[in-house]
Amino acid sequence: MIGLFSLGVAVTGAASFAVLNKSSRQSSTLPLSEAPKIHHDTSAANIKAACQEFERIIGKDHISSERTDLVTHSGSDYQSYAWTEENAILSNVILYPETTEQVSQIVKVCFRRRLPVTPYSGGTSIEGQYIPQFQGVCIDFTRMNHIKEINPVDLDCTVQPGIGWVDLNDELASHGLFFPPDPGPGAMIGGMVGTGCSGTNAAAYGTMKDWVLSLTVVLADGTIIQTRQRARKSSAGYDLTRVFVGSEGTLGLVTEATLKLAVKPPHEVVAVCTFPTLRAAASAVREVASSGIQVAAVEILDEVQMRNINLAALTRLKWKEEPTLFFKFAGSDDFIVKHIAKKVGEITKRNGSSTYTFASDEGERNELWSARKAALWSMLAQRQSPTDKVWTTDVAVPLSRLPDIIELAKADIEESGLMGSIVGHVGDGNFHTLLLFPEEKRPIAEAVVHRMVDMAIEMKGTATGEHGIGLVKRDYLEKELGKETVDTMRAMKSAFDPMCILNCDKVIRMKPVEEQ
Amino acid sequence: MIGLFSLGVAVTGAASFAVLNKSSRQSSTLPLSEAPKIHHDTSAANIKAACQEFERIIGKDHISSERTDLVTHSGSDYQSYAWTEENAILSNVILYPETTEQVSQIVKVCFRRRLPVTPYSGGTSIEGQYIPQFQGVCIDFTRMNHIKEINPVDLDCTVQPGIGWVDLNDELASHGLFFPPDPGPGAMIGGMVGTGCSGTNAAAYGTMKDWVLSLTVVLADGTIIQTRQRARKSSAGYDLTRVFVGSEGTLGLVTEATLKLAVKPPHEVVAVCTFPTLRAAASAVREVASSGIQVAAVEILDEVQMRNINLAALTRLKWKEEPTLFFKFAGSDDFIVKHIAKKVGEITKRNGSSTYTFASDEGERNELWSARKAALWSMLAQRQSPTDKVWTTDVAVPLSRLPDIIELAKADIEESGLMGSIVGHVGDGNFHTLLLFPEEKRPIAEAVVHRMVDMAIEMKGTATGEHGIGLVKRDYLEKELGKETVDTMRAMKSAFDPMCILNCDKVIRMKPVEEQ
Repeated sequence: MIGLFSLGVAVTGAASFAVLNKSSRQSSTLPLSEAPKIHHDTSAANIKAACQEFERIIGKDHISSERTDLVTHSGSDYQSYAWTEENAILSNVILYPETTEQVSQIVKVCFRRRLPVTPYSGGTSIEGQYIPQFQGVCIDFTRMNHIKEINPVDLDCTVQPGIGWVDLNDELASHGLFFPPDPGPGAMIGGMVGTGCSGTNAAAYGTMKDWVLSLTVVLADGTIIQTRQRARKSSAGYDLTRVFVGSEGTLGLVTEATLKLAVKPPHEVVAVCTFPTLRAAASAVREVASSGIQVAAVEILDEVQMRNINLAALTRLKWKEEPTLFFKFAGSDDFIVKHIAKKVGEITKRNGSSTYTFASDEGERNELWSARKAALWSMLAQRQSPTDKVWTTDVAVPLSRLPDIIELAKADIEESGLMGSIVGHVGDGNFHTLLLFPEEKRPIAEAVVHRMVDMAIEMKGTATGEHGIGLVKRDYLEKELGKETVDTMRAMKSAFDPMCILNCDKVIRMKPVEEQ
Repeated sequence: MIGLFSLGVAVTGAASFAVLNKSSRQSSTLPLSEAPKIHHDTSAANIKAACQEFERIIGKDHISSERTDLVTHSGSDYQSYAWTEENAILSNVILYPETTEQVSQIVKVCFRRRLPVTPYSGGTSIEGQYIPQFQGVCIDFTRMNHIKEINPVDLDCTVQPGIGWVDLNDELASHGLFFPPDPGPGAMIGGMVGTGCSGTNAAAYGTMKDWVLSLTVVLADGTIIQTRQRARKSSAGYDLTRVFVGSEGTLGLVTEATLKLAVKPPHEVVAVCTFPTLRAAASAVREVASSGIQVAAVEILDEVQMRNINLAALTRLKWKEEPTLFFKFAGSDDFIVKHIAKKVGEITKRNGSSTYTFASDEGERNELWSARKAALWSMLAQRQSPTDKVWTTDVAVPLSRLPDIIELAKADIEESGLMGSIVGHVGDGNFHTLLLFPEEKRPIAEAVVHRMVDMAIEMKGTATGEHGIGLVKRDYLEKELGKETVDTMRAMKSAFDPMCILNCDKVIRMKPVEEQ
């Protein structure tokens, strides 16, 4: 009665309010110290009982607990996280559902039984997004690989999460359409939504955030929601679509995605030019941008990378081992596309480039672009041992600082003694270093990466332009965005997934480090 | 002890878990029936004590409780919500802070004292976003109208919420840059973030969601967060920037925004063409889009709207009173822009247009575009009484359904006996009807709007393409997105603003209708 009585009068202190609301959290953020304790239950008895329920939902044939499956779903050598087969945490069981309804039923079981859930689609993420941290259940979306509809006039399509973007684009080509985000070739839509990925098309077309219209999502308690209808533009309530894009499966599991599509420009030109220095190349890109010329893509590869491509002999051409820009131009009109390509050629020449090779024929275009595509594989070809690791970083900075950070990063890699090359999405301030190292030199690689991230944050940039946070980058978040921002993200996570069963402890730490 | 003991064994029922977690909410959604009761305190004593605190924070001169101020901050005649000066709910006090720190201190006072807060910037929103629902405090951002920095090479700028986009663009022009979202001329950045607005540039450039890099936000408990750094691309944690864009001041108050900028295309052409029917015009737009031609803007005005423009004589030209398309083409090269304009001319001719007027000279361009700009004012000029209302709808549908819904809406308006015209962002499936009516005919207007929204939702579209939800559209949300989706949004709202002090009960109902 005291509590209720105090409502009608002017209360000046905070203490009195506590009486009214002692059961509910009274702040907008959730510091780690106040996060609810995680109580998963992965006891053998709970797993066994759960599996009996899973069998009723998806049938015995779509459940696996074979060690080889569990291992391939537990990590890879291309992760920034120190995964090895020996020390891997394995899920207890892998489930292969076929429908949204099945995923919902599975998650309801996991919610009731407090079983941790790790989602898996293409397995190409490199920040540990699919590495299980607490055993439990892995949900593999491989069987949910259908295109449900393509609406050519509406420029959209609806697909399941297990379809790859390469397969989707093969199908769309017959309609003269394509889906622009182009990450690693094996990536599937589910994971692409999860990481909020991008690729070489991002400079002109934007990232995954810009190409998802609507999502069907299974929440932590099994509730199925759809975030939007199909209008290309909507202000109907909070932007849940973009809440889930980039949330790495920690807020909900995507079981269907309606994607915007673009008209495939009928004409395309690829141009390649080399520069005496990275800075000269960057300055050419800047002049192109500030003149308002729209390029479809512009990528930079450093001389180390060009040398690796020659060494690996993955392309038919022999390349100059100099900092190199790769341009794509595209449009509705052959004449215009060539006109723009020529104008850019004048700009690159003015900025010190001595060569400018360009191709409009499809075969020649693909040949030129093949070097850009071969970057990662040519680095992998340099491995001295099959267990050597490749760590691909992806810091991004405001455009003006890109030449500075690339130069600093190159000098630091050189000093470290590691092999490291640069591949950059120079149009949006994002670049990769590909660091090659044997496991015993991991501390050296780690130190290089940490220094690079520190520099990027110092320059008002980000630890990750497109690969996401996953595991290793969690502890950069506070430095980059501040503790309060991370505490706000944690409040969101806790609202969506109060028992932390969905990809728990990724993106945002939900468990204090000292308890790990 | 029973609860703790049960952790180690296989538990199959939900009941046992309740023991462990009885104090925390165990689901991913928050139905209205379970939302915490709202206990604001707007007693005279509380307001008086709060004002003493506000005086210490911003000084007496920046606090107003004059009736005229309170009234102008309480609504307008252009709202879809039935606002009149007589029945308006007034805030108790209006505060004019100057800094983020002051806003934070004010909100801390409001949080402690449970005072409802309504944010206000340009006052041009039309869905009741700034109409107070619970009295309390109005925070007016007029004094926070500075550009803090412009970074021309990085193509970004940082501004306070009280600057208008028109003023910002005046400043940016000297750098050859511009900020694309172009809603009503009086709109300010704070409100534009709040509604996730767009305008005629959206077809080519996207909406507000696409042009905000980072926000400084004061949360409901006064915590200050920054959502991102300045890199143009980032995957660093949840996309809080886009959580706040379009949240209409219900999740936090924006006190600073870092915006992406575009290079102002040096060459522009405007073209105008008339068609025998709306459907022929729409089919021309579709052919342009599917040929991959990129237009800077394309707008449609129906014959009623063109007649109003002639009647109002707001433009120097006399227009054909037929369905009319307005195109803008822009680019880095005069020759290319004209080439594209001509190609589009061929397409419109093929689709039945008999006229195609185009202008590249700035004066002539502005004259042609002036009709599009005069749409709302020409409708206001038709008012029979100064208290007549204009209701501007903004449904959006998948592109293929736009001609259908426009035809159906036109027939319905005609049958209703109201004056109503059509202005459409035909490039993105979004169109406005401008309905003119005296207050006593509101039920007729309401019925027209409700039928139109029903049709849009039926066609997989949305009740709102760009104006937001505010008050009237709250009850469309469940129909459009489903109860579970709205319950998920409510869980977010409650996590960010547990006592519902920020623009409470807008976008998402937080108080059952029967308690209003």
